[in-house]
Amino acid sequence: MADYHEMWAGLGLDLKTHDMLLEIVGKGYTDVFLSQKNRPKGMEYFDFVMSEVHGLRIKELLDAKAEGRKVVGTFCVFVPEELVLAVDAVCVGLCAGAEFGFDEAEKYLPRNTCSLIKSAFGFKLGKVCPYIESSDLIVGENTCDGKKKAYESYKDIVGNLYVMDLPQMKSTEGRALLKAEYKKFALKMEEISGRKITVESLLKGIEIANNKRKAIHRLSALRSVDPTPISGLDALLANQIYFYDDPIRFTASVNALCDEVEARIKEGIGVASKGTARILLSGCPMAVPNWKVPFIIENSNAVIVGEEMCTGERGTQNLVEAKGKTVDELIDNIVDRYFKIDCAVFTPNPNRLEHVKEMVKKYNADGVLHYGLQFCQPYQMESKVIERELEKDGIPVLLIETDYSQEDAGQIKTRVDAFVERIKS
Amino acid sequence: MADYHEMWAGLGLDLKTHDMLLEIVGKGYTDVFLSQKNRPKGMEYFDFVMSEVHGLRIKELLDAKAEGRKVVGTFCVFVPEELVLAVDAVCVGLCAGAEFGFDEAEKYLPRNTCSLIKSAFGFKLGKVCPYIESSDLIVGENTCDGKKKAYESYKDIVGNLYVMDLPQMKSTEGRALLKAEYKKFALKMEEISGRKITVESLLKGIEIANNKRKAIHRLSALRSVDPTPISGLDALLANQIYFYDDPIRFTASVNALCDEVEARIKEGIGVASKGTARILLSGCPMAVPNWKVPFIIENSNAVIVGEEMCTGERGTQNLVEAKGKTVDELIDNIVDRYFKIDCAVFTPNPNRLEHVKEMVKKYNADGVLHYGLQFCQPYQMESKVIERELEKDGIPVLLIETDYSQEDAGQIKTRVDAFVERIKS
Repeated sequence: MADYHEMWAGLGLDLKTHDMLLEIVGKGYTDVFLSQKNRPKGMEYFDFVMSEVHGLRIKELLDAKAEGRKVVGTFCVFVPEELVLAVDAVCVGLCAGAEFGFDEAEKYLPRNTCSLIKSAFGFKLGKVCPYIESSDLIVGENTCDGKKKAYESYKDIVGNLYVMDLPQMKSTEGRALLKAEYKKFALKMEEISGRKITVESLLKGIEIANNKRKAIHRLSALRSVDPTPISGLDALLANQIYFYDDPIRFTASVNALCDEVEARIKEGIGVASKGTARILLSGCPMAVPNWKVPFIIENSNAVIVGEEMCTGERGTQNLVEAKGKTVDELIDNIVDRYFKIDCAVFTPNPNRLEHVKEMVKKYNADGVLHYGLQFCQPYQMESKVIERELEKDGIPVLLIETDYSQEDAGQIKTRVDAFVERIKS
Repeated sequence: MADYHEMWAGLGLDLKTHDMLLEIVGKGYTDVFLSQKNRPKGMEYFDFVMSEVHGLRIKELLDAKAEGRKVVGTFCVFVPEELVLAVDAVCVGLCAGAEFGFDEAEKYLPRNTCSLIKSAFGFKLGKVCPYIESSDLIVGENTCDGKKKAYESYKDIVGNLYVMDLPQMKSTEGRALLKAEYKKFALKMEEISGRKITVESLLKGIEIANNKRKAIHRLSALRSVDPTPISGLDALLANQIYFYDDPIRFTASVNALCDEVEARIKEGIGVASKGTARILLSGCPMAVPNWKVPFIIENSNAVIVGEEMCTGERGTQNLVEAKGKTVDELIDNIVDRYFKIDCAVFTPNPNRLEHVKEMVKKYNADGVLHYGLQFCQPYQMESKVIERELEKDGIPVLLIETDYSQEDAGQIKTRVDAFVERIKS
């Protein structure tokens, strides 16, 4: 990586702390990803992206800003990237996956707040996130209580927060609320960019986002094969980079990876031997560099074959219909797609259980590991139902509740080992 | 109390466990309430109600049912009692305030769920709540994540649950959603009762509910005096019984109590000496028999002078305008009142902070004790803001986070003692 210290200083980062953070994440990346055997060569692109995640990618964002384009930072798959792209702005994910600055964060947040939220505060307060600092607008959304209420303080800390309301039920009124919010958001995008959303620009945004999803769907489908041709860690990485990278380049890179993976399948090459325990991950999102549980699983004689997560198929499933004569019609199509997202903040949310079952079948999973962030009530609540319903169908389920610390890694490893033994017996 | 075992058996209660529960609650009541000195004589009515809370009051409900009236059980101050009364049904609160059946509850709920929710499950699963068993309809509502998601399982357990959606923001769309939900609820009331809501019946319902609120407002206002003429425990009890008792009888009893309290004020009679530390309670609701923290406060050289809680002024403030030519107009008035409730599930929720400040002034409080149930994210989140903003104005704030167990009573007592010392120094 080139020397970006001047760029980081310009963004107001705390250089010393930021250097430390990069070193830790870099070391973690080496241990978790580069230690893997028999990886597809196409993963080199993603290794490069990760090595430049605070470097070249930030430079690209700043170059885009210099050209007058806007950067929109988001925390949730409910923020429609299509509307961001329609004003030629850049959409980047801001969720953080490391225990950093939690002491500072707890001045604003109760101790009993999930790590994902604490991390968003910690990275801002500790001045170590160049994405937050590059964003012209940061978009929050009323999903869970934790985020919804935390944004009230976050607003004061970041200064450029826009909060999007969300419904709690998939009712007629709920859909109307979502549409009203998306229309407001479209106006906001026009306002910050000084550009008008047209049928043409929105169709282009829809196409870019759909293509990104299609590429990820293609990669996911290839994981149904035994032996699985790509590790869950690598597939998760692609799903994580989905939120940061230039979407067109990302799509091309995922498709190139898929070409290679298809060839591997023909040759019978896998990352683990045929018959290795196949696990479906389900639950809370895993933001970079939150690789703890997947790393444990794939170092316990098992492979991950799918992610029923926001950083996975919950976030990418379904396309927006790219057909419409007016911007309003296209926004309706966008609402149709996003309203299907089966996030646990909705009540009731039967589609998620169905989706987990479908994924188990589609990817030939032997069992499901439900990943719950501590204090994440919506997913913790649903985990009980998923466990009950899947076990009833004879599908083993392991509920893991954890945070961003490494303290429980040994305990989780023991439980995963026992689970793998159970599902292969 | 007469022998109600036959009635309880008829409701399907677990008689042995229920007897044990009544014994414990009865003993707690004696220790907490009857041990108080210098109580107004008018509290005898409330003592009687409490002694018959599972007896005579349940018999009244069953008698009403025998006459064809319906019983509607609720968990939240957002359920408009006016619409229940307008079909001549009876509205009763179902929130429980005791650690009971938590092991059973945790089969459905994550460990990290607040005691209020666990209790609702524990009382149903343990078959010890005659109110739940007498209810023709149980109404849940999408307030916090915990309740919203818990109702998905509760529905299966109780069989007669109706869930009301709620907005998360006080926007135009939010108000429209609340109105749509109240109209649906009005239809549901008509459906279960076989009665039509008319302008006349709804005006009557509004009047009954308003009168109940006015009586409580009157009692609250009398607590601004030093020495305070009634204990916080007794005032809380009235606020708790507000949810159970026949509303007209309750109103008359509170007004009779107020007459007496006014006389006491004239004579300078107080429950504690002039100059005793005056504390405003703020935060999560306290359902019967959750008296732990108020009991500690009032046994630590302090008196409670107000409750900024659902079982208090958050629940009772504001009246419904009793004027309108159509049912729809009256429902609009109802929406106007309820939409003002400053529950922490709303974002942003600046009115609550203002209300706490107003109450501090109005009741001449020396400090605020914020009562947060463990894992209640909305109130825990707001407690940080309340603490910061009030301390900035020189108003001492103590944040207590607890559950329904008695284990931390000693620790809380130590903290309250120190707090009282601080505010009187």
